[in-house]
Amino acid sequence: MHESDARLSRDCWADLKNPFRQVAGSICAPHGFKCAAVFCDIKKLGTGKGSEKGQKRDLALIVSDIPAVVAGVFTTNQVCAAPVKISRQHARKELARAIVVNSGNANACTGLQGLRDAQTMARLTASALDKLNCFKQLSLPARISAEDVLVCSTGRIGVPMPMKNIDRGIRACAPGIARSTSNARQVAEAIMTTDTHRKEIAVELKVGRSTVRIGGICKGAGMIQPGMATMIGFITTDAAIEPRALKRALKIATEKSFNRITVDGDMSTNDSVIALANGLAGNSKSEIQRSQFQNALNFVCLELAKMIVRDGEGTSRFVALHLRGARNDREAEAAARAIANSSLVRASWCGGDPNWGRILCALGYSKADVDETIVDVGYARLGTRKILFAFRHGRPTNVALKTLAKITAAPDFDLHVDLHRGCGEFVLYAADLTENYVAFNKGDVSDPETLGG
Amino acid sequence: MHESDARLSRDCWADLKNPFRQVAGSICAPHGFKCAAVFCDIKKLGTGKGSEKGQKRDLALIVSDIPAVVAGVFTTNQVCAAPVKISRQHARKELARAIVVNSGNANACTGLQGLRDAQTMARLTASALDKLNCFKQLSLPARISAEDVLVCSTGRIGVPMPMKNIDRGIRACAPGIARSTSNARQVAEAIMTTDTHRKEIAVELKVGRSTVRIGGICKGAGMIQPGMATMIGFITTDAAIEPRALKRALKIATEKSFNRITVDGDMSTNDSVIALANGLAGNSKSEIQRSQFQNALNFVCLELAKMIVRDGEGTSRFVALHLRGARNDREAEAAARAIANSSLVRASWCGGDPNWGRILCALGYSKADVDETIVDVGYARLGTRKILFAFRHGRPTNVALKTLAKITAAPDFDLHVDLHRGCGEFVLYAADLTENYVAFNKGDVSDPETLGG
Repeated sequence: MHESDARLSRDCWADLKNPFRQVAGSICAPHGFKCAAVFCDIKKLGTGKGSEKGQKRDLALIVSDIPAVVAGVFTTNQVCAAPVKISRQHARKELARAIVVNSGNANACTGLQGLRDAQTMARLTASALDKLNCFKQLSLPARISAEDVLVCSTGRIGVPMPMKNIDRGIRACAPGIARSTSNARQVAEAIMTTDTHRKEIAVELKVGRSTVRIGGICKGAGMIQPGMATMIGFITTDAAIEPRALKRALKIATEKSFNRITVDGDMSTNDSVIALANGLAGNSKSEIQRSQFQNALNFVCLELAKMIVRDGEGTSRFVALHLRGARNDREAEAAARAIANSSLVRASWCGGDPNWGRILCALGYSKADVDETIVDVGYARLGTRKILFAFRHGRPTNVALKTLAKITAAPDFDLHVDLHRGCGEFVLYAADLTENYVAFNKGDVSDPETLGG
Repeated sequence: MHESDARLSRDCWADLKNPFRQVAGSICAPHGFKCAAVFCDIKKLGTGKGSEKGQKRDLALIVSDIPAVVAGVFTTNQVCAAPVKISRQHARKELARAIVVNSGNANACTGLQGLRDAQTMARLTASALDKLNCFKQLSLPARISAEDVLVCSTGRIGVPMPMKNIDRGIRACAPGIARSTSNARQVAEAIMTTDTHRKEIAVELKVGRSTVRIGGICKGAGMIQPGMATMIGFITTDAAIEPRALKRALKIATEKSFNRITVDGDMSTNDSVIALANGLAGNSKSEIQRSQFQNALNFVCLELAKMIVRDGEGTSRFVALHLRGARNDREAEAAARAIANSSLVRASWCGGDPNWGRILCALGYSKADVDETIVDVGYARLGTRKILFAFRHGRPTNVALKTLAKITAAPDFDLHVDLHRGCGEFVLYAADLTENYVAFNKGDVSDPETLGG
């Protein structure tokens, strides 16, 4: 396990004799979760492009066979999308049944109509699922209502939701839901926007005598930073867990994963991580607290988060930045973010340049207390503990830039910064700034289709 | 005059019947200032490149014939260069005689030796000037001492100062000092690092019956942002002014100019603006307060600051961002900086994309209080007052992106954002993020000479 993961474990519910292990699949790996995805022409609405079925799925449903304990963590951006407002409300309840998600349209900055549209998406999903035989057979007491459905959207800002397509999509999607790895794969694809590949993971752990599984998928590549990203993440588990315990566990895991990555410093309007726990593993709820569940959930979220950084728009380098010795953790985070969001530092990473001068400069304007005469800056190969210092005790070392560049020219490296002012620590996963990022995001006035995206 | 300049005038010492006017030249336009620049092999030390004399000047002296009132504004970066520390100290006094400046080496992160080197630069300059006949003839009471000299350096961080070259450079430079426009032009060239052209300006105004001139040069292209930039600015004036009044005037002018620009959000270790006022215009000091002096100084600094943005590394667009309606000026500034430092917003400007969704997203994560349902976002052609709104009263307007893009595709445009929450205002001059910026700053591992710069 990576050093930082090991560190995360320390402050969690630990049971190191009984570790979790990774298994195949993602959100359908736990018992009692079904899903499906379809194309309903939201991703390239009106352009006639990309309508080949199967390639550009843009609407998906994730359903638990029985009511599941729900937890959600959402963007802290003041300008937040309509589906975030609806899902935040529905996640306050103890139980939920399903998630409906679309890509291609963020339903953000769409006013009252946007809120109505997000509510309609929940209602349409509830009514489509309610008609399915597979759930009728379970003879559950209550019908699925709109409040049991969480809604997520990702894509363009400020464009009205094409509700006809959404309606058609949900009706087409519902009958196809199944517990299948290939369906889960299609859902992981359907939530992609600028992502270049699917992001999925599943783990298995023992809770007492029961085997519990946690599965997850996510999306995100640009607008990635602070209090979460343009990212959407879905976690399913068959663990039996108290609602309050799940909400707390998801908050901790998010703090240690999705809130520790940055691609471009932009926090999106639609960031959401939603967890559903349906209890079908049959474990005792009291045993969860003594188990590896939190560690496993941290691991799932951190691996998904790292996949987002690695797939960052146009990025060519993945930098694990270890900031130590700040006066407190808050200052460590401020210092780490100043470095990882500096355009100049990120541009130097792009060229594989171990430019510590720009790092010191960014430290100097961060809100952390910095005394340049005692700072250390060093680099390490991915996964090794041997740090090669470029700057130590406030002085440049004798290590040649060329030697350091052998480390920083790799697609993955660790950056270690020690301020020697206290015990504050923060780990941040960051990416470089490339010409491709700019080319990707700049739009082209000669092609209006590329504008406003 | 530009609208924002007109706004600046309102809160200054105004005498609109008697405006200032631009004149030719720069720091030698005011009476009693001499300067010279030489090449002494700092810019490309050891590579053998760029040694053609006249093309790569890297050391300059600016001298006042008689002791001049001095004011300085320096970087707020905690990691600040040795010359900044020395100049800050020397600028606390009332009077100074000269400035020595080099490019090619920032003398930052160089420890105690760096401080000693900066002090030596002041001492070498004082002793070289003291030997000159031109000053001996003025039969001034006191000799020039090291404390009368301010020191500025700009260039690479973390490289020891090549003091032999500096010594040689100062000795070679001193005898050449003269009050000549071509010398001033050479000094403006000598302070350039990644700048593509000289930045110089001079104005003239009446103070009572006297004619006062203010001249200025500056440099800066990358690491440009908040509490000043990687910039160095020198202002000379022959106005007679009290030391306290000059310090206050320079602070106000800097607030309204160099602190209102951003290229890449990085604040440098070496930012310095120094003003010298030698009183040779012969005006009465009391008249200064009733004159246009502050307006003229604001204008000089703002024009120089705008030149920096226009010459921003790799930039292709100059955006004057007018943020209004924040709860207070501080929140207006926070909102403006969130927009202008967003990688996504800046990448969209590069493509000429009027992407208001990204602007709203950045507003949402700024520290300003934002209610998306009442925000306005609009664009205007440079210098016109007609705003074409993309988003008004919290809704997208009917104006087509294509129509908006006709404005944003120009190399200069105004962006107007109104939060409708109060009376807070801020104007920020910003630049786009281009592939060229990244290419320029990324270094190249195959060429160690490009690393660490």
